[in-house]
Amino acid sequence: MGVGRLERKTGPGNDPAREGRQAMKWVYEFGGGKAEGNAGMKDLLGGKGANLAEMSNLGLPVPPGFTITTQACTHYYANGRQLPEDLPGQVTAALDTVGGLVGRRFGDPSNPLLVSVRSGGRASMPGMMDTVLNLGLNDETAEGLARVAGDARFAYDAYRRFIQMYSNVVLDLDHHVFEEILEIYKEENGFSLDTDLNAEDWRKIVAAYKAKVEAELGEPFPQDVHAQLWGAIGAVFGSWMNQRAIIYRRLHRIPESWGTAVNVQAMVFGNMGASSATGVAFTRDPSTGEKTFYGEFLVNAQGEDVVAGLRTPNAITKAGRERAGESQPSLEEVMPGVYARLVEAKDRLESHYRDMQDIEFTVESGTLYMLQTRTGKRTARAAIRIAVEMAQEGLITQAEAVARVDPLSLDQLLHPTLDPDAERDVIASGLPASPGAASGEVVFEADEAEALKAQGRKVILVRIETSPEDIHGMHAAEGILTARGGMTSHAAVVARGMGRPCVSGAGTLRIDYAQGRFTASGITISKGEIITIDGGTGQVMRGEVPTLQPELSGDFATLMTWADKIRTLRVRANAETPEDARTAREFGAEGIGLCRTEHMFFEASRILAVREMILANTVADRQKALARLLPVQRDDFVQLFQIMAGLPVTIRLLDPPLHEFLPRGEEEVAELAADLGVSPDAVRGRVTELAEFNPMLGHRGCRLGISYPEIYEMQTRAIIEAALIAGEGAAEPVTPEIMIPLIATRAEFDFLKERVDKVAKAVMIEKGRTISYLVGTMIELPRAALRAGEIAQSAEFFSFGTNDLTQTTFGISRDDAGRFLGDYVEKGLLPVDPFVTIDADGVGELVQIATERGRGSRPGIKLGICGEHGGDPESIAFCARTGLDYVSCSPFRVPIARLAAAQSARLED
Amino acid sequence: MGVGRLERKTGPGNDPAREGRQAMKWVYEFGGGKAEGNAGMKDLLGGKGANLAEMSNLGLPVPPGFTITTQACTHYYANGRQLPEDLPGQVTAALDTVGGLVGRRFGDPSNPLLVSVRSGGRASMPGMMDTVLNLGLNDETAEGLARVAGDARFAYDAYRRFIQMYSNVVLDLDHHVFEEILEIYKEENGFSLDTDLNAEDWRKIVAAYKAKVEAELGEPFPQDVHAQLWGAIGAVFGSWMNQRAIIYRRLHRIPESWGTAVNVQAMVFGNMGASSATGVAFTRDPSTGEKTFYGEFLVNAQGEDVVAGLRTPNAITKAGRERAGESQPSLEEVMPGVYARLVEAKDRLESHYRDMQDIEFTVESGTLYMLQTRTGKRTARAAIRIAVEMAQEGLITQAEAVARVDPLSLDQLLHPTLDPDAERDVIASGLPASPGAASGEVVFEADEAEALKAQGRKVILVRIETSPEDIHGMHAAEGILTARGGMTSHAAVVARGMGRPCVSGAGTLRIDYAQGRFTASGITISKGEIITIDGGTGQVMRGEVPTLQPELSGDFATLMTWADKIRTLRVRANAETPEDARTAREFGAEGIGLCRTEHMFFEASRILAVREMILANTVADRQKALARLLPVQRDDFVQLFQIMAGLPVTIRLLDPPLHEFLPRGEEEVAELAADLGVSPDAVRGRVTELAEFNPMLGHRGCRLGISYPEIYEMQTRAIIEAALIAGEGAAEPVTPEIMIPLIATRAEFDFLKERVDKVAKAVMIEKGRTISYLVGTMIELPRAALRAGEIAQSAEFFSFGTNDLTQTTFGISRDDAGRFLGDYVEKGLLPVDPFVTIDADGVGELVQIATERGRGSRPGIKLGICGEHGGDPESIAFCARTGLDYVSCSPFRVPIARLAAAQSARLED
Repeated sequence: MGVGRLERKTGPGNDPAREGRQAMKWVYEFGGGKAEGNAGMKDLLGGKGANLAEMSNLGLPVPPGFTITTQACTHYYANGRQLPEDLPGQVTAALDTVGGLVGRRFGDPSNPLLVSVRSGGRASMPGMMDTVLNLGLNDETAEGLARVAGDARFAYDAYRRFIQMYSNVVLDLDHHVFEEILEIYKEENGFSLDTDLNAEDWRKIVAAYKAKVEAELGEPFPQDVHAQLWGAIGAVFGSWMNQRAIIYRRLHRIPESWGTAVNVQAMVFGNMGASSATGVAFTRDPSTGEKTFYGEFLVNAQGEDVVAGLRTPNAITKAGRERAGESQPSLEEVMPGVYARLVEAKDRLESHYRDMQDIEFTVESGTLYMLQTRTGKRTARAAIRIAVEMAQEGLITQAEAVARVDPLSLDQLLHPTLDPDAERDVIASGLPASPGAASGEVVFEADEAEALKAQGRKVILVRIETSPEDIHGMHAAEGILTARGGMTSHAAVVARGMGRPCVSGAGTLRIDYAQGRFTASGITISKGEIITIDGGTGQVMRGEVPTLQPELSGDFATLMTWADKIRTLRVRANAETPEDARTAREFGAEGIGLCRTEHMFFEASRILAVREMILANTVADRQKALARLLPVQRDDFVQLFQIMAGLPVTIRLLDPPLHEFLPRGEEEVAELAADLGVSPDAVRGRVTELAEFNPMLGHRGCRLGISYPEIYEMQTRAIIEAALIAGEGAAEPVTPEIMIPLIATRAEFDFLKERVDKVAKAVMIEKGRTISYLVGTMIELPRAALRAGEIAQSAEFFSFGTNDLTQTTFGISRDDAGRFLGDYVEKGLLPVDPFVTIDADGVGELVQIATERGRGSRPGIKLGICGEHGGDPESIAFCARTGLDYVSCSPFRVPIARLAAAQSARLED
Repeated sequence: MGVGRLERKTGPGNDPAREGRQAMKWVYEFGGGKAEGNAGMKDLLGGKGANLAEMSNLGLPVPPGFTITTQACTHYYANGRQLPEDLPGQVTAALDTVGGLVGRRFGDPSNPLLVSVRSGGRASMPGMMDTVLNLGLNDETAEGLARVAGDARFAYDAYRRFIQMYSNVVLDLDHHVFEEILEIYKEENGFSLDTDLNAEDWRKIVAAYKAKVEAELGEPFPQDVHAQLWGAIGAVFGSWMNQRAIIYRRLHRIPESWGTAVNVQAMVFGNMGASSATGVAFTRDPSTGEKTFYGEFLVNAQGEDVVAGLRTPNAITKAGRERAGESQPSLEEVMPGVYARLVEAKDRLESHYRDMQDIEFTVESGTLYMLQTRTGKRTARAAIRIAVEMAQEGLITQAEAVARVDPLSLDQLLHPTLDPDAERDVIASGLPASPGAASGEVVFEADEAEALKAQGRKVILVRIETSPEDIHGMHAAEGILTARGGMTSHAAVVARGMGRPCVSGAGTLRIDYAQGRFTASGITISKGEIITIDGGTGQVMRGEVPTLQPELSGDFATLMTWADKIRTLRVRANAETPEDARTAREFGAEGIGLCRTEHMFFEASRILAVREMILANTVADRQKALARLLPVQRDDFVQLFQIMAGLPVTIRLLDPPLHEFLPRGEEEVAELAADLGVSPDAVRGRVTELAEFNPMLGHRGCRLGISYPEIYEMQTRAIIEAALIAGEGAAEPVTPEIMIPLIATRAEFDFLKERVDKVAKAVMIEKGRTISYLVGTMIELPRAALRAGEIAQSAEFFSFGTNDLTQTTFGISRDDAGRFLGDYVEKGLLPVDPFVTIDADGVGELVQIATERGRGSRPGIKLGICGEHGGDPESIAFCARTGLDYVSCSPFRVPIARLAAAQSARLED
C-alpha cells in the first residue's frame, strides 16, 4: 500500500514525523484487562477507540485489539497519502499481541485470527467508511476456520459476508451485484431464507462472489490477509477526504486536521450457534428516561443482522418482554448467567461514565464480550428525566444536569405533538417552520379564519405565502401551511413568535384561491376539509391525527428551577398580545423585551383608522385618525403592563413602512375608498406613491417618526397614560422602556427623544402624577453599532435587533434569501444560517463593538437582544460571552433560552 | 443691558472669567496706523475684525474702532446670557480712544461720534445680525451733527436711516412699517425720489418713525446712546443662537463654541456731497480672473445704496468704463487723487494677502477710507486663471495655486454651459442632477432616442424616471430630463457617469407617454419640439438656448499638471464603453477602476441573448446563450484594453439581479416570447419568479456567480481572451483585474476564485500564451469590511464599493431615500448626503477597518474606491487620509479627482 515508497517520495527533512520517527507511537493496544489508552484520549484514539481502551481498563470483557491514532491519518495527508514508514511494524507487533491474547494468528490457516476494522474519529461522522468484519479470511483460512469452529457453514457464511463487505467499502463495488448473485442462487435452488443454505451452498456463493469481483475489477479478490488489512486501513483514511465527509465537516465545522483513527479488533462471533448472541442495550430507557435496563438481542446472529431487521430481536429483560407483550424469551430468561454479567457491566459503565450508555455486546459460545459503549442518544423527555434523576441520585451535580439537556430539544416538549402510534395519511411535506402539531378546517383567507375562530371552529390557514395583512388570520388559526417561503419567511417567523405550528414551503401544493381548494399528491382538498400539520417534521396529513399535549411540570419544572439558579443572563419575551404576554410569563419570561406596536395595528377593528392616518393629506387629518387609535393603543399597553406587573416592558414605536398597512387587491382598495369616502384612485395613488424598491432599507423605523412626528407622539402618549393607569394601586411602579427603531445617527435619536420627553412630560402634568421611563434604541444598523458610543450619550438602553443587523451586515434580504441560500448550503459556503444562529465573526463583532462603545460612554447601560437569535442557544452563548444583560425571544422559546442561558453561564465559569 | 446684575446672578467661583477678571482682555482696538490685533487672530476677532486690524497695521486709512472678541460671546452664553462684568469699562475706554483719533465724542451733542456695529465670526454666516450704521444719533446729537457737518438734510437723513435699521435688526420691527410711512409722506407731498426731500421733510419723517416705534413696542426709541450701543452688541450676540444661524451651523458643521465678534467703528460718510463716495472693488476681475482692477462706486452715497440698486454705480477705472460702454465718468476720472491712493491700497493688499481681494471703501469729503478687505469670491474660470497667474508672477507657489481652486467648481468648466447673455424661456425646474447644458428634440422612448441619434439628430430623453433598460437611449441623448427621482436616482447617477447633462425630479412635469407630450407651466411640449436643459441649475427651457463650449487647455491644463506633480493618490475612471474610456483618458484617468459588465448587456443587439440566458431552464441552454455573448464581451474588453494600453483595467463580473434585464410591459413580454419561441406565460412566469422584495439585498453580485457559475466562467473567458488579443504586439502586457462583487465571506470568494483561475488557465493553455491577472473583490458589505483580513488572504485587491456600503451601513436604499432625506435635511439631521460625501464616522470606519485588516494579512494589497464618492473632493481627502492607492470616478469627474487628490496630498504633508 505504498508504505515502502515513502523513502523515495519525501526528501530528508521533508517529513515532519521523520525526526521523531523512532519515538512516534502510532498504535495503542487494548485487551486482556488493560489498555495503553483511556477515555480521556479521544483526540488521539477517536471516541470508539478511547472507550474500548477505557472498558478494557475497567476489566470488562473486551475482545483485544488496537487503535491506529488520528495522528497517523494526519501524517497520511501531510505526506501525499503515504502511511508512516514505521506503522507496519507497530501493527504487526500489535497483531501478535492480539493473537497471543486470543490464541490465534492472523493469516494462520490452522487457527486464523479474524479482525474487524472500523473508523472512529473524535466526532461521529456519516460519510466515513464504517466497518469491515471477518477480515483475515481467504480460501485457506476459511477452511481453517471451518475446522477450528467445527462448522463449515458458519465459516463460509462468514467468508461470503466478508467478501461482500470488503468489496463494497474498500473496493467500491456496489452491494447489489452480490445480492443479485445470492437471489438468483436461491431462486434456482428453491430456497427462500438464507438459513436454507448449507455449507456447500455458501462455498458456491463464495466462488461466484470472487469471480464477480475479478470480472468487475480485473483483479482477483485479495487472498493476502495483510493486503486485506492495509486495504481496509487505507479505505478508512481515504474516506476522511471523500466529498460527503468534507461537506459534513464544513457544515458541522469539524476541522480537517482532526483526522480519524482506525480500530482493529479480534472478531468474536454471535453467530456460532444457540449459545451465541448479539445485542444492543441502553442503561436507561432512551425514550422515556425511566431507570430501567432496556435493549434487544438476537440469538445466533452477527451485529449486522440486528441492524438489517430481517429477524425481530427480543427484549433483554423479562420485564421488558412482558411490557411489550412478546412471547420470545428475554436474554434474562434464556442466558441468565450472561445476563447477570451484562447487568453488572452496564451498571459499571453508567456509574463510571456518569451518563446513560448505549452499549453493544456479543455472546460467543456463552461468553459475553463488550464491543462498544457510548453516551446514548435519547428523546428530549428522556434527557430531562435522566438528568434530573441522576442529579437526585447524586451521580451528577445539578449544574451537570442542566448541561445535559439540549435546549433546542425542549421545543418538542412545549408544543402538542402527534401521537406516534396514530395513523398518518401524509399528502405533502414542507419545512418544519414552527414546531407543534395541529388539525383544523382548511381556510384560505385570514378574515375567514378569524370569522370561523369566532364561531369556535378550528382552522388551518393555507396560503401561497403570508404577509403582515394575514397576521390576524394566523392568530386565529391553529396552524399555518404555506406553499412558498423558507425557515425565515414571514409565515415561519410570525408563527414561531405566536407559537403556532407552521409548515412552510410545501412546494408541491397547488393552491387555487378562486376555487377554494388545493391539490397535493394528486389529492384535492377543499375549503372546510380537515387537515393536520406537523410543524416539527414538516408533514401535512389529510384528516385529523390525534395529538399529545405538552407536560411542563415534574422533571421539566425541576430542571428549569436549577437552570434559573445558575444563569445570570435574563430572559424576556417578544410579545404584543395579552395572550402572548401571559404565555410568556407562564414560561418564565422576566419581562417583555420587544413589543412590536405595529402588530396591534393590523386588527380588523383598527386597520381602518390606521389606513385613514396613512391616507391623510394634512397633519391635522393625520392627528384626527391618530386620536382614534390612541385609546386602543393605551388599552393594549395597560393590559401588557398589568400582566407583566413588576417586570420591565420594552415598547418599540412604529417600525414598518406604511405601505405594509395598505390594501393591495382592487376589491379591498374599493372597500377602503368607500369607507373613507375618497375615490379608489386616491387610494391607489397613495399605494403607488408609498411603494418602495427596497422596503427593508426604506421609509420605516425612526424615519417615520421624523417625517410624521405625530405618530410617535400618539404612541408615547398611549404608553405614558397606560403606565399611569396600570401603576395606580399596583405594588410596584410601571417603568416603560420606550424604544426607537432603526436609528443610524445620534441626531435622529436626539430629535425623537426630545419629542418623546415633551409628550411624556405633558401627560404627567395633565394627570398630575409622575413615573419614570427609559428611552432607548434598537441597534440594528451597522452604523448604529459603530456609533454606539455617541448614541449611548443620549440613549438609556440598547436592544440589538440582530435580524435587521444581519440583513444589513450581510446585505441579504431575508425575504429573498430563499432563492440562493439553498445553493450556499449545497456548496458548503454557509455552515450556519446567519438568521438562525448569529454570525459571531461579522454581525457579532458589531454587537461587541456597540457593547464596548455603549458601555464606554454610559457605564451600566442596559443591553439586550431581541432578534430571532434571542431564542437560539448558540446565539445565547454568544450574548453571554459578550456580556449582554438579557435576551428576548418568542414566548415559546423562553424555556429554551433559560436553559441555554444557564449553560452559557457555566461556560463562562 | 444686565451687565450690572452679573454680581448678583453668579456666585463666587461660578464665573469662569472671574479669576482672570482683571487680566481678561475683551476689546481690541484698531486705527491710527496701528492695531492690537492682526490677520492671524481670526479665531478671536472674527474675519472682519482681524482684517480691519491688519489693514490698520499696514498703515492703510481705516476709520478707527475696536473689536469685542468671540470669547465675550462664549462667555455670554456660558453665563446665562450675561456679558462679562468688565466689558463695559473696556468698551468705554476704547470709545474714548476712537473719539480721540477722530476728534469727536460718543453722545456729545456738540460734536458727536457716530459708529457702525457689525457682527463678524470666524466664518461668514447668513442669519446673523449684519450691520447697524450711524449709531449714536438721538434728537440732540442729530442736531449737533447737522451743525458740525453744516448740512441738516444729511443729519436727519442719517438719523432716519439709523432708526429704521436699528429698529429692524435690534428691536425686531419689520422694515415695511417704515417704508410705508416714507411712501405715504412722499405721495402726500408729491415727491417721487428720496432726493426730493429736504431737511425739514426728514425731520418730520424722523418724528413719525419714533412715534411708530413707541406705538409698536410701547416704549420710546432709545435716546441714550450707550443703551443704543449695548442693544446692538446684545443683538449681535443674540443672533448667534437664532434658529437660522443654528441650522446653518449644523449644515456647515460650524461649532457653536466658536461664537461671534462685534466690530464697532467710527462712521465715515460717503454721502456728504460731491466729494464723497462709496464703492466696492476687486483686485482682479472676479469673473474672468484677468489682472485688472475692477469695481464700482457711487458719488454721494452710503454703502447700502450700492447694495439697494436704486442708482446704477459707475466703473472705477477708465478702461472699465470704456469696456462697458458707459458714459458716466469713472472714479479714476472724477477723483484722480483718491483713485491713486485706492490703487496703491489695493496693490498693497493683494501682495500682502497673496490673493485676490474684495474691498469696500468710502470717500468722505475727498478722504479715502478702507472699510473692509477679504478674499474675493470668483468664478471657476477666474479662480484657475488667478491661481496660475499668481504662481507665475511668483506671488504664490504652484502648490498654493493648486490649493486655491475648489475642485467641484471644475464641473462648470468641463461641460457646455448656457450663454449667460442668451434669453431663456424657463418652463420648469428640477434638480441639477448632472452638469452641462444641452438642447434637442423631445423624445420619450430610449429606442426612439437611439434611432434619431443614428439619423444625426439631437434629442433630449424625457422620462418619468429611468431604468437600466433606458441606458442605450440615455447614451444616444444629448441630455436627460425626468419628472421623478433625486440627485442619486438612476437617471442622475447614470447621467453623471456618462457626462450627460441631466435635470431630475422636475415635479411639475406631467408626462403623457401615450400622447407623446408633456405639460409644464401650462405649456404643452410635444415629441419633436426643441427644449434646452441646464444640468448645472436644474432649469428646463423651451427652444434652443446657445451654449459655450468648455476650454480644457491653457491655465486649466497648467494647473492640472501642477496637481499631478503633487498628488500621490492615483485617479482612475469608471467606464464601460470605448467612448467613456477615451473621454476618461483625455481627462487624465490612470486606468479603469470599475468596468460594469452589465452595462454592456443592455445594448439592443445583446439583450436578447442575455434574456435567453436568464430564461434558460438548463445549464446547457444557459451555456448556449452565453456562448453567443462571449464574442461580444470579448470585443468590448479588447477595445477597453487597447484604449487603456499600459494602464490597469478592473472588470467587475456581473452584479445586478437578473430581473433587471427582463422586460416589464406586456408588449415587450410578448415580443420576447416570440423571439425566443416560448409562451408569454413562460416569460411572465420567470419575471414573477425572479421578482424580489429587496433587490438591493437579493440574488445579485457573487450570489449569481455561485448559483450560475457558467456566467462568470464566460466572462472570465472573455476577459482573458481579450487580454491575450490586446496584449499581442502591444508595448506593455495587459494585466486585467477581475473583480468579484458583493462578497460577504471568504468562502464565497474562494469558491469563485477557484473557478476564475481554472477558466483562465484553460484559456491560456488553449492559446498557448500566458498573462498575469489579479482576482480581487469589491468591499461593499459591512461584513466584508469586518472580515477583510480573512478575505485578503485570497483576494489580490480590494475596491471599496461605497455606494452599496453606504446603503447597507445606513440601512438606506438610495432608490427610496428621496422620500425621507428631504425631511432630514429640513430638520438639520443629516448635514451631508452620505451618498455624495462619504460618512467618515460610520462608513468610513468600515473602510479604515478593512484597510488595516486587509493590509495586515496582505501587505501591499492594492486598495481603491469605485463608488460615486471617488469623484467627491471631501471623500477623496478621506481616501488619502486612509491611505488608499487610488480613487475611481466618472470620466467627467477625473479632473476634479486629480485636483482634490493633490489638495489632499498637501493636507497630508
